Amino acid sequence: MTGLRQPTVLAFDVFGTVVDWFGSIAREVDALRLGVPGADFARAWRAGYRPAMDRVRCGELPWTRIDDLHRLILDEILLRFGIASLNEEQRRHLNRVWHRLDPWPDAVPGLTRLRRRHTLCTLSNGNVSLLVDMAKRAGLPWDCVLSAETFHRYKPDPETYLGTCRLLDVPPAEMMMVAAHPDDLAAARACGCATAYVDRPLEFGPGRPPEAGPDAAADLRARDLEDLADQLGCPRG
Amino acid sequence: MTGLRQPTVLAFDVFGTVVDWFGSIAREVDALRLGVPGADFARAWRAGYRPAMDRVRCGELPWTRIDDLHRLILDEILLRFGIASLNEEQRRHLNRVWHRLDPWPDAVPGLTRLRRRHTLCTLSNGNVSLLVDMAKRAGLPWDCVLSAETFHRYKPDPETYLGTCRLLDVPPAEMMMVAAHPDDLAAARACGCATAYVDRPLEFGPGRPPEAGPDAAADLRARDLEDLADQLGCPRG
Repeated sequence: MTGLRQPTVLAFDVFGTVVDWFGSIAREVDALRLGVPGADFARAWRAGYRPAMDRVRCGELPWTRIDDLHRLILDEILLRFGIASLNEEQRRHLNRVWHRLDPWPDAVPGLTRLRRRHTLCTLSNGNVSLLVDMAKRAGLPWDCVLSAETFHRYKPDPETYLGTCRLLDVPPAEMMMVAAHPDDLAAARACGCATAYVDRPLEFGPGRPPEAGPDAAADLRARDLEDLADQLGCPRG
Repeated sequence: MTGLRQPTVLAFDVFGTVVDWFGSIAREVDALRLGVPGADFARAWRAGYRPAMDRVRCGELPWTRIDDLHRLILDEILLRFGIASLNEEQRRHLNRVWHRLDPWPDAVPGLTRLRRRHTLCTLSNGNVSLLVDMAKRAGLPWDCVLSAETFHRYKPDPETYLGTCRLLDVPPAEMMMVAAHPDDLAAARACGCATAYVDRPLEFGPGRPPEAGPDAAADLRARDLEDLADQLGCPRG
């Protein structure tokens, strides 16, 4: 933390950074015995995410929350994988697996330590109800749940980072964006925010290292959220 | 709860319902020895609140958050009470007393019980940073902090109640508005929400019973938030 001012607010990317979407979805899909490996299904679902959001970001679709984008992608990949066995209620339930993602093992203890000294908020493209359901189930101790949905803009649009600073009443330099994704951090940095890169080598599953490597420009690089708490000087226990 | 469906979401008014603005402000003003009774000062400040919000609601002022409305009113009442002894930094600090309001004694234990079975959110005219600071200081266990600022509309505009239902993804009938103020509850009811009236006989201080009595149309009437937890069947301990 030499040379870096202690941030007042820590804003967290969630999918991949705080929770393990890959493992959670792969396990749930495997348990459904659909005849397709859960790992492939999880990766295909996630691969549809950025293009779907970009249809909103460029104005081709009006504001559409992630629950509904996830459902569009889900119907498409069920078709692509040739799975016709899920009825409407089962599809609806499966689509909400994104509300039931498990946290990485370090997330709850790390956030609990960080929260004693910092204001913790989500800044996720997930919709508000998804983030609230997830936090309640997993015990994620947010001070405030903010979402792309709060601003009707998806990250990496600057309005999401600047809107978070505005709502929490801090100048950008007092907010640190925490993410496992360099593009998210680069966009936050362009708004004047501090940044912390978190290593999540298993985000896409074993043997699939993330294509975007560490973010060399980040103020901090942490192995996980416990390590982030160590580096920010938040005591253990 | 006979005849009433268990609400998924409980949305709470905050000033007066969850926290004691009168006592908190009166105490802080008395400690400043300004030569004016803290009780009078607190009531004068609060009396300016509705007219100031109405200037935003009718479009006379653009969107202005409560922190800034509180400051406009503060400068005006300092003038009215003939207090010239506060410099800019002291005014700024005093204005943030609204971030430091103490909860009613039943609030933290009551909310803690309610949270085990329900999703708890604020639905307050206080701005987001005010509500987050207050919750962190007082230990209020919200699942989600929502505010007039989230919608750029002040209660009792219907968009605040309907917007809360939309963000938390519940139909209005599954959300219960909890407040000590019949006008807030009436507006929520007009949107299709369930309502719980909470008695706060000391909201305006001892010997000043609230002018707006209990809300006879509310689905529930509770003595405090522990009693609300009892009536909603949330176990103690």
